[in-house]
Amino acid sequence: MAKDGSVNELLLFLLSKKGIYVSGEELSEKFGVSRTAIWKQINRLRELGYEIDSVPRVGYCLKKSPDLLLPEEIVQNGPFEFLASKIYHYTSIGSTNDEAKKLAQMGAPHGTLVIAEEQTGGRGRLGRKWVSPPGQGIWLSIILRPSLEPSEAPRITMACAVAAAKAIRQEVGVNCLIKWPNDLLIDGKKVAGILTEMSADMDKIHYVVTGIGMNVNNAEFPPDIEKTATSLKLASGEEVERLKILTQFLSQFEEIYRSLEGGKFEAILGEWRQLSCNLGKRVRIIGRNFELEGTALDVDGDGALLIKTDEGQVERVLSGDVSLRE
Amino acid sequence: MAKDGSVNELLLFLLSKKGIYVSGEELSEKFGVSRTAIWKQINRLRELGYEIDSVPRVGYCLKKSPDLLLPEEIVQNGPFEFLASKIYHYTSIGSTNDEAKKLAQMGAPHGTLVIAEEQTGGRGRLGRKWVSPPGQGIWLSIILRPSLEPSEAPRITMACAVAAAKAIRQEVGVNCLIKWPNDLLIDGKKVAGILTEMSADMDKIHYVVTGIGMNVNNAEFPPDIEKTATSLKLASGEEVERLKILTQFLSQFEEIYRSLEGGKFEAILGEWRQLSCNLGKRVRIIGRNFELEGTALDVDGDGALLIKTDEGQVERVLSGDVSLRE
Repeated sequence: MAKDGSVNELLLFLLSKKGIYVSGEELSEKFGVSRTAIWKQINRLRELGYEIDSVPRVGYCLKKSPDLLLPEEIVQNGPFEFLASKIYHYTSIGSTNDEAKKLAQMGAPHGTLVIAEEQTGGRGRLGRKWVSPPGQGIWLSIILRPSLEPSEAPRITMACAVAAAKAIRQEVGVNCLIKWPNDLLIDGKKVAGILTEMSADMDKIHYVVTGIGMNVNNAEFPPDIEKTATSLKLASGEEVERLKILTQFLSQFEEIYRSLEGGKFEAILGEWRQLSCNLGKRVRIIGRNFELEGTALDVDGDGALLIKTDEGQVERVLSGDVSLRE
Repeated sequence: MAKDGSVNELLLFLLSKKGIYVSGEELSEKFGVSRTAIWKQINRLRELGYEIDSVPRVGYCLKKSPDLLLPEEIVQNGPFEFLASKIYHYTSIGSTNDEAKKLAQMGAPHGTLVIAEEQTGGRGRLGRKWVSPPGQGIWLSIILRPSLEPSEAPRITMACAVAAAKAIRQEVGVNCLIKWPNDLLIDGKKVAGILTEMSADMDKIHYVVTGIGMNVNNAEFPPDIEKTATSLKLASGEEVERLKILTQFLSQFEEIYRSLEGGKFEAILGEWRQLSCNLGKRVRIIGRNFELEGTALDVDGDGALLIKTDEGQVERVLSGDVSLRE
């Protein structure tokens, strides 16, 4: 809620006392402001959708949070080690990745999160649109300052995909798979996509912004993607709490990222392989200036897909669109 | 001189008529402005250091240009194919690369040049300082929008190094060599450095900014680099015209870049090999988290240096500081 990515301490405190009455006097003393200032802040929270009961001479009691991915709600579900060092939350924004790149350029720290309730210009790979309606999904970008070579940046997409697939499996209990290079599928339909962007020189990554768009409670999609897209709600038949899946994802990502920085990429690759829907399958890949059919053998440390063609050659593909051929 | 990267047409015209008197009336008609407006512009050019003679009832005559790398002077020395589509010229700036990145972010086209007479915060690799005093060198950044994979971006540094070495050899007649990954040496001393930065996602480069700092007429260097740095003037014993070496470099770079985009990287690599001071030599490389000694065998398509160690293994090094060991 704060413009500098920090959190509202009053809300954080009320969240920690959810269901308990706290007197205005206590709040006033704790935060060193007048009781009128507290009252004003309480009203601001009510405007956001917080149900806060107030009883004269007893105090305030937070009864219910609105369905918003507010920084305080995320922090409350922590602790996190390096993620959420700062959290920028927007009701509506063009693209969280674009905003995160601006913030990174201005020095936003490693682990900064940029979250929007709605994206009006959400983007996927190759400039494709990502439909991001208000409150229905997780539209999130993470600013990272990894000690990886620029050519290793695709490892971050892989780490993010593994974290998201594991979080979805754990929280929703569905068979979520990774489609190379950056999508998550349930029953062959896209439930999430990852877009990793970087600023780098030839020696060093300056920063990475890894964005994830996850369809959580979408009930329907535009005609052009309705056959290929799904949401966690459509796949599981139940409304899913966005906050729960988001914080589960953040925990998973933090653990996997630690492995990555610790030089244990092989372990992540192992998990990625197990979650992949492509490996061992016959695939067709359409790239910018080639088309290729063959068997997907593996992924290497630069995120390239290794394809065995019918002629028996192994081709290394860095980028392209994959379709399963069986 | 114009803030949008375009050129001053009056100056361009006067440059094309250097030494010839053109009447104020002719200029007024040609550019559709009053003779007073022409007179004001002439005075602005004089303030920049242009020697312009004016004779009543005869007209204006451009006698001499100041030693400035103004857009009009560069365009006048063209034509170029895609370089110099826009030229931003600054008397003094922090870093041309930083400015170029901002302009690229805002959509500046492929081939845009950013030139400064002085950099107050010139940068080299790994955040190192590049001393860039007023008027003594070429402090230039080029905005490119190449159709290369992100991992192939180091090819642009290589193309730039080849172009600069060839331009220096041709214009100054000295034995200029390339030191992996991004320096140009004369007699073992650094005369120029290249810093390539990019913004990319995992599929595509959004833009590349390749910066070159070339010491042209520096007579001396700060104590900490005086033993390792040189200038074209110090190396050749003569003052060198910055404009001449700059436009020669731009021509060379344009030709080499065309080969690169045309898929002829092997030809560039061939030239790079011939100009390299490292290949075939015993070298020590100090990287972020390793140290390596061996023989430099070759460079590959991702710009990595291939080192044969004493144990006979070939190691692939993407980044580090090289010193010659013999």
